[in-house]
Amino acid sequence: MDRTNWNTRAADRTDRLARAAQALGKARAGKHVEAGSIGELLEAVMQPGDRVCLEGNNQKQADFLARALADVDVSRVHALHMVQSVLSLPEHLDIFESGIARRLDFSFSGPQGARLARLVAAGGIEIGAIHTYLELFARYFVDLTPKVSLIAAQAADAAGNLYTGPNTEDTPAIVEATAFAGGIVIAQVNEVVGALPRVDIPADWVDFVVQAPTPSLIEPLFTRDPAQISEIQVLMAMMAIKGIYAEYGVQRLNHGIGFDTAAIELLLPTYGESLGLKGRICSHWALNPHPALIPAIEAGWVKTVHSFGSELGMEEYVRARGDVFFTGADGSLRSNRAFCQAAGHYACDLFIGSTLQMDLQGDSSTATLGRITGFGGAPNMGADARGRRHASPAWLKAGQQARAGRGGAAGTPRGQKLVVQMVETFREHMAPAFVEKLDAWELQQQAGMDLPPIMIYGEDVTHVLTEEGIANLLLCRTDEEREQAIRGVAGYTAVGLARDRRAVENLRDRGVIRRPQDLGIDPREATRNLLAARSMRDLVRASHGLYAPPKRFRNW
Amino acid sequence: MDRTNWNTRAADRTDRLARAAQALGKARAGKHVEAGSIGELLEAVMQPGDRVCLEGNNQKQADFLARALADVDVSRVHALHMVQSVLSLPEHLDIFESGIARRLDFSFSGPQGARLARLVAAGGIEIGAIHTYLELFARYFVDLTPKVSLIAAQAADAAGNLYTGPNTEDTPAIVEATAFAGGIVIAQVNEVVGALPRVDIPADWVDFVVQAPTPSLIEPLFTRDPAQISEIQVLMAMMAIKGIYAEYGVQRLNHGIGFDTAAIELLLPTYGESLGLKGRICSHWALNPHPALIPAIEAGWVKTVHSFGSELGMEEYVRARGDVFFTGADGSLRSNRAFCQAAGHYACDLFIGSTLQMDLQGDSSTATLGRITGFGGAPNMGADARGRRHASPAWLKAGQQARAGRGGAAGTPRGQKLVVQMVETFREHMAPAFVEKLDAWELQQQAGMDLPPIMIYGEDVTHVLTEEGIANLLLCRTDEEREQAIRGVAGYTAVGLARDRRAVENLRDRGVIRRPQDLGIDPREATRNLLAARSMRDLVRASHGLYAPPKRFRNW
Repeated sequence: MDRTNWNTRAADRTDRLARAAQALGKARAGKHVEAGSIGELLEAVMQPGDRVCLEGNNQKQADFLARALADVDVSRVHALHMVQSVLSLPEHLDIFESGIARRLDFSFSGPQGARLARLVAAGGIEIGAIHTYLELFARYFVDLTPKVSLIAAQAADAAGNLYTGPNTEDTPAIVEATAFAGGIVIAQVNEVVGALPRVDIPADWVDFVVQAPTPSLIEPLFTRDPAQISEIQVLMAMMAIKGIYAEYGVQRLNHGIGFDTAAIELLLPTYGESLGLKGRICSHWALNPHPALIPAIEAGWVKTVHSFGSELGMEEYVRARGDVFFTGADGSLRSNRAFCQAAGHYACDLFIGSTLQMDLQGDSSTATLGRITGFGGAPNMGADARGRRHASPAWLKAGQQARAGRGGAAGTPRGQKLVVQMVETFREHMAPAFVEKLDAWELQQQAGMDLPPIMIYGEDVTHVLTEEGIANLLLCRTDEEREQAIRGVAGYTAVGLARDRRAVENLRDRGVIRRPQDLGIDPREATRNLLAARSMRDLVRASHGLYAPPKRFRNW
Repeated sequence: MDRTNWNTRAADRTDRLARAAQALGKARAGKHVEAGSIGELLEAVMQPGDRVCLEGNNQKQADFLARALADVDVSRVHALHMVQSVLSLPEHLDIFESGIARRLDFSFSGPQGARLARLVAAGGIEIGAIHTYLELFARYFVDLTPKVSLIAAQAADAAGNLYTGPNTEDTPAIVEATAFAGGIVIAQVNEVVGALPRVDIPADWVDFVVQAPTPSLIEPLFTRDPAQISEIQVLMAMMAIKGIYAEYGVQRLNHGIGFDTAAIELLLPTYGESLGLKGRICSHWALNPHPALIPAIEAGWVKTVHSFGSELGMEEYVRARGDVFFTGADGSLRSNRAFCQAAGHYACDLFIGSTLQMDLQGDSSTATLGRITGFGGAPNMGADARGRRHASPAWLKAGQQARAGRGGAAGTPRGQKLVVQMVETFREHMAPAFVEKLDAWELQQQAGMDLPPIMIYGEDVTHVLTEEGIANLLLCRTDEEREQAIRGVAGYTAVGLARDRRAVENLRDRGVIRRPQDLGIDPREATRNLLAARSMRDLVRASHGLYAPPKRFRNW
């Protein structure tokens, strides 16, 4: 082997830093760069084909750097390979249209999903793969290591130490992978201060800091106005609490985003209390600081919450409830998406979320035609963590139900994660949630994917919860039983109407399907009066005025 | 709800710090504490029943702090709940015998496994659970958050910033969970310096720093002397490379510890090269810097290696091969067990390891009677990562083989991780590796465990590789087929002799079982001459003198 130089990466880094120093001249002081020179900096440190992470998180966005990247000279910077968790801003796709970027590996593109699909169809973008968040971070350390990362923080000090504030999110994972692989880290900050409230990212790991003209964008993605929770959602939440949480004694859990799970959070201090469940369920959470959790926290249900990111308006509440949240010495939240996803995967007994479509195998997906969106964290949390070895009553019981009476490898005792899909049988515009075939299959053809984009596999789903009842798939022993169990809670959808009534009644006798009345729940009691907060104003009141909802959620 | 103070954790922390300040007096300067006062510090900041993490890593040990903890006044500090990944030093158990600690949650106790079992049997210790590493770290953020953490680093500066050197290992996960939950972090360091080579842990996250009288202990756990590799291991390594790595095109992988996998590493530049596989397999690794990988790196096989920890003696080699390893600006390795386990779980297509026992379901375990050891990282890497959504040829092919012709949920297309168990049919003292029933079942009874301590479940194993051949369990369709496939490579063990010869020949015809000759491998060619290094000296030579093996591995 004639290779003699094995430190080309370090040399390349030195070259890039030297080019930056030259390009910036007096616009640079130490690690600090003037905002007006950001274009020169990017053009100096980037090379065609570079792998680049532009921090597009679930919540906070490196928006100034996104605009700057969209503005670089495409003759100098092009064909970049973007590796970032979320596509959220228009600039995240503009760079593909202009040729600055060519290839994309990502996790979620919610707001840009339709445009992304059009770009892929037009050949304007190569998609590497769609990942769950922790999976993408994992690849940062294997085969998708960024060469340049453009990140966002709240503040920097003179040395370049960063304070992310409550939205630490993806930043530590991105920076660690980049800084320790000879890459270059550029941070936009809202302010430069003499002394940081705390250090989230050491200056050592950061090459350049730019104070952006405007604070970085953050979206309040996890705020749900209780006024919009329906009585059907209250009924479903009652079934979740009594038929699943209490049944298994679920103490550690993650909730998906949405009104269904917000209803559960708001029923804990009322309905949950009436069932005597306080202390027996829902004590430890892997969850962003959901405003809907405030009444349960105030009522003493919640011991700890570790968070992926933060939530706008919850800053003062979190600071005042330091016993519950992970906070720094400054009192503000320290979130961390990588660790919280690990917690959701390995330390939680239950994941409950929603979907747009579920088929007769129990496979479910939010992917719809004409959109390429990805699933964010759901696949990681909505999958059985087969590497898990510690037991809990909930996990053991689920495993026993799944394995009782089975032989061979499938009969070896093992726990199992509870993965609940909570869906109304019809979603908006009377689209059925239950279908014979997922749109995902057609989408696979359309976009040339290796596999259909399934969010949660039927093999991993343990319970399907609709307004008609709960189907416990753990107790099904054949494909036919599973199919009838799903049909049996699919209501008046075509799938539901095509049920074999005798088979469904048999499943009900065996407790595989449970209706509200089987659970001792009277649907007439499922009123909005059960909600611990019925409006945003109630949430603010429950928080003793500490929660400050963003303007769009206030009507007073 | 009458709770008025929700920041008791912060107040408690302030109290403890005040007690420490008082107890230490002039023995403290800023965060720095004199070594002779470590006992006063521990007694001041700890309270009975505290959850404590004593950094007992896979490799480096906070040994000075372990001794100090074993020496505290048990009337002041007792009934601690220890949450630490590895029990390695005698002090890790001494504290249970003396009553300083009572409860234990951990991952691995290799060297202390027998003593741990005796202590449990005598009622001297309550075991919470045994975890895989990432699972334990995940629980640090949910229900096992440490109140006090005792960690080890290479150096500190005056402010208390820490440099871990190449063995960063668990430290970032431990410190983050503790520091952001109102806990107290105490670090032992080998030296205090004016300027650190790099910052691994910000001073903000550290409360006290003590310079230990002697450098912290580190074990070279991943060094295997090529002189001890047998020709049977060479044959098995040839089968692994040709029959599995080449067959699936495995580019991203993790190797377990041991001579079997060291043989594979040493055959890449020789046998692998002769098959034209360079560039087609084994480019990206989640692996400690194994000395046995040096010849493959030098021959240009390896693009990147991300590491859980480091390996003694590899420091200069890593520094000189910066293009391959994750290193800081100082040139030394930055390892990170949490991220590398995430990489092993989500970004690798194959895990290959060894076991002591495998049963007819394919369940395997290294747990043996009279010892409670745990499995470290194996369960996390030796399990199908069901949350994974990105495709690769290896993963897709494994998934296709597992699902072809299946209906229902099991028939939905999905990729699968390759999980290979590589075992000789007999281990030392002629103990058979294949058994009708794992010792794990008796151990479960003995230790009152909820489940038998199984390391890798048969449901997750895809290939069993012995000197007799490869059994591809992905292709088995019934419990009976799987059993015969395992018997068919179990050689002259009782399990192997009890095979149904016709069934086994049928499996061979179908390619479920493949013998060396079926793979075009002549066992006579399996000689030690194929190894790219046949001694420690050869490894040093291959490294151009950069690898400096610890004394115990040198005989020259």
